[in-house]
Amino acid sequence: MATVKLWTDEEVAATPAVKAVFEDIRATRKSDFVNNFWRALANQPDLLERTWASVKRVMIEPGALDPLTKELVYIAVSAANSCTYCVHSHTAAARAKGLSDEQYAEFLAVIGMAAETNTLANSLQIPVDRQFLTG
Amino acid sequence: MATVKLWTDEEVAATPAVKAVFEDIRATRKSDFVNNFWRALANQPDLLERTWASVKRVMIEPGALDPLTKELVYIAVSAANSCTYCVHSHTAAARAKGLSDEQYAEFLAVIGMAAETNTLANSLQIPVDRQFLTG
Amino acid sequence: MATVKLWTDEEVAATPAVKAVFEDIRATRKSDFVNNFWRALANQPDLLERTWASVKRVMIEPGALDPLTKELVYIAVSAANSCTYCVHSHTAAARAKGLSDEQYAEFLAVIGMAAETNTLANSLQIPVDRQFLTG
Amino acid sequence: MATVKLWTDEEVAATPAVKAVFEDIRATRKSDFVNNFWRALANQPDLLERTWASVKRVMIEPGALDPLTKELVYIAVSAANSCTYCVHSHTAAARAKGLSDEQYAEFLAVIGMAAETNTLANSLQIPVDRQFLTG
Amino acid sequence: MATVKLWTDEEVAATPAVKAVFEDIRATRKSDFVNNFWRALANQPDLLERTWASVKRVMIEPGALDPLTKELVYIAVSAANSCTYCVHSHTAAARAKGLSDEQYAEFLAVIGMAAETNTLANSLQIPVDRQFLTG
Amino acid sequence: MATVKLWTDEEVAATPAVKAVFEDIRATRKSDFVNNFWRALANQPDLLERTWASVKRVMIEPGALDPLTKELVYIAVSAANSCTYCVHSHTAAARAKGLSDEQYAEFLAVIGMAAETNTLANSLQIPVDRQFLTG
Repeated sequence: MATVKLWTDEEVAATPAVKAVFEDIRATRKSDFVNNFWRALANQPDLLERTWASVKRVMIEPGALDPLTKELVYIAVSAANSCTYCVHSHTAAARAKGLSDEQYAEFLAVIGMAAETNTLANSLQIPVDRQFLTG
Repeated sequence: MATVKLWTDEEVAATPAVKAVFEDIRATRKSDFVNNFWRALANQPDLLERTWASVKRVMIEPGALDPLTKELVYIAVSAANSCTYCVHSHTAAARAKGLSDEQYAEFLAVIGMAAETNTLANSLQIPVDRQFLTG
Repeated sequence: MATVKLWTDEEVAATPAVKAVFEDIRATRKSDFVNNFWRALANQPDLLERTWASVKRVMIEPGALDPLTKELVYIAVSAANSCTYCVHSHTAAARAKGLSDEQYAEFLAVIGMAAETNTLANSLQIPVDRQFLTG
Repeated sequence: MATVKLWTDEEVAATPAVKAVFEDIRATRKSDFVNNFWRALANQPDLLERTWASVKRVMIEPGALDPLTKELVYIAVSAANSCTYCVHSHTAAARAKGLSDEQYAEFLAVIGMAAETNTLANSLQIPVDRQFLTG
Repeated sequence: MATVKLWTDEEVAATPAVKAVFEDIRATRKSDFVNNFWRALANQPDLLERTWASVKRVMIEPGALDPLTKELVYIAVSAANSCTYCVHSHTAAARAKGLSDEQYAEFLAVIGMAAETNTLANSLQIPVDRQFLTG
Repeated sequence: MATVKLWTDEEVAATPAVKAVFEDIRATRKSDFVNNFWRALANQPDLLERTWASVKRVMIEPGALDPLTKELVYIAVSAANSCTYCVHSHTAAARAKGLSDEQYAEFLAVIGMAAETNTLANSLQIPVDRQFLTG
């Protein structure tokens, strides 16, 4: 259970600043479904507005990386940070964007290996090779 | 400075089990340069051999994800885990595989936002929407 | 479900070393409610006693920081460490100490931004400015 | 050494989008010193602009929490995330905002205890008390 | 609920590559019970096979550390990484290998203290003593 | 460089509360060498005294786990938390307590695998088997 109230559609409708963001979420995603993350942030309208603006700018607007790659990078960070909610919501998003079972299997292999070698490098305190340094 | 000795090429040459792995690293990567990660693991030949076999299988052999996507996922985990060595070595690898400045900028925006929303979701303890659950 | 038994009041009453700590918790907090954290630690009486002594000294006795600031710092660490139990128990404690909705909203904005810039600084491996170093 | 170039004042002056942000940083902080974090982000002008807008909004504009409390919360997250750069830059900022040695000592005691009890609660998998749940 | 299907024994029996691994798990552990971790990995047969080969080699085959010590080290990492599943499964494994209540209490004291002093050292950015460096 | 001054022996000698702790560290460890961790904590005499009392009680006094096992558990947490200082100081301590190269190699294999499987379990959100639950 959340540490804050999750706003219902009725409560959203009664607060203009929150209503405007929810309408933009629905219009941008072309879907009526608004997930709990936004219903929790609705308690903090300024944070809601700024967070949605960032997510829209970074994850939804076209950019230099394709949408599926961005979802995989997002899940990778979320798994490393043990964020249950984020892993679930973005794995669903990745599947909606076409993630195949083969791609998911390979993605899992990469994040598992990254975590393994991170821990080895951190425990061995390996110095960075001169060749990897910029400038 | 590492917690273990970093093996020189001379020391590698004198230990058959280590020599065989280093030769495969050089042949697979088509480069004479072997970075410190492997020179540190050389102290543990069994771990060296198994780790290299995994890296070769997961990061180098062709698979369902393209090589650059795999590097970005790897860096994402490494940044979340604060692994200085891994961030440096795999950012260099990503550049070698064609990472453009625009892609890197967008990648940074994604991992920053992921970390931000991970912390928000973890602090608000938002329950996972029924819609995101499998099965 | 915990990896250990959560002690009931009857079990606590039957073990003098545990009983003494629970009585001090109740007397110090002026409340009969003892939360599950202490009921789990009751399995390890020495750890229970030392942990309570620290919590009492650091979080409850008057010091250089006001009690609400200390709770916010505590939740910040707990969110970064993905500790579900700690986030819940200390968010409740912060509210009991007067945390307003406006303060909570701003707190969330700060921890989200901190996590975002932490990940950016870790991935860019930015060197510390000479001006920030002591001595 | 960073994974990207740190921009000099000359390079900043030659790029209008970056120059505008640097001028706002200097004007807002009333100081000529611009630290390396912004010199690294200058390689990604859009990210630079959005990150500075957030930092200005969250950390500098007046809000419901006092500036020193926000710095302490920021350092707490940064220490938990092992961000060397962030710990240094925000400890310096906290001192500039009046952090006393006594407050710093107490802050350290709180984050140390939080980390300790986080690990205990995570390893014991203690269920959240019904009393802590909202709604 | 998992992000993937957990395979039933019937599904396992119908896929030779998965069936072979499950048979080896059962034979090696001398038990019919196969826990959910493997039922989830069954969706990725190559990852399943490689992960089981590693676990068998590292955790089950005789080595330089005794089995109980390896379980404790494993739980320590899992608690620091907030892995609910891993903490539960390996605490059960440690008990099956003879972990006493006294040993568990002392283990908890060590990981709590390690987390506390990690956070202190990271926030104070203490330089490593020359005496601790190798070579 | 630390965020605080590292106390010299002269400074320690001039402050009775700090002097007493340093004398106990030297007497307990039967060595004149006092490492930087304590020289940094000397700025916070109360935290210094309490932290040393815990370390002495948990890591040095005889208990249910042997001293080398406790050091390995400590390093495991420190590697997962990316604490450079702690990894170095406790790897040195483990070697001083007899850690062999074979044991260190196996330890590294365990923590690498733990981190890998932690990330897999967290990303797959695998539900805990009923068989692992207590009570």
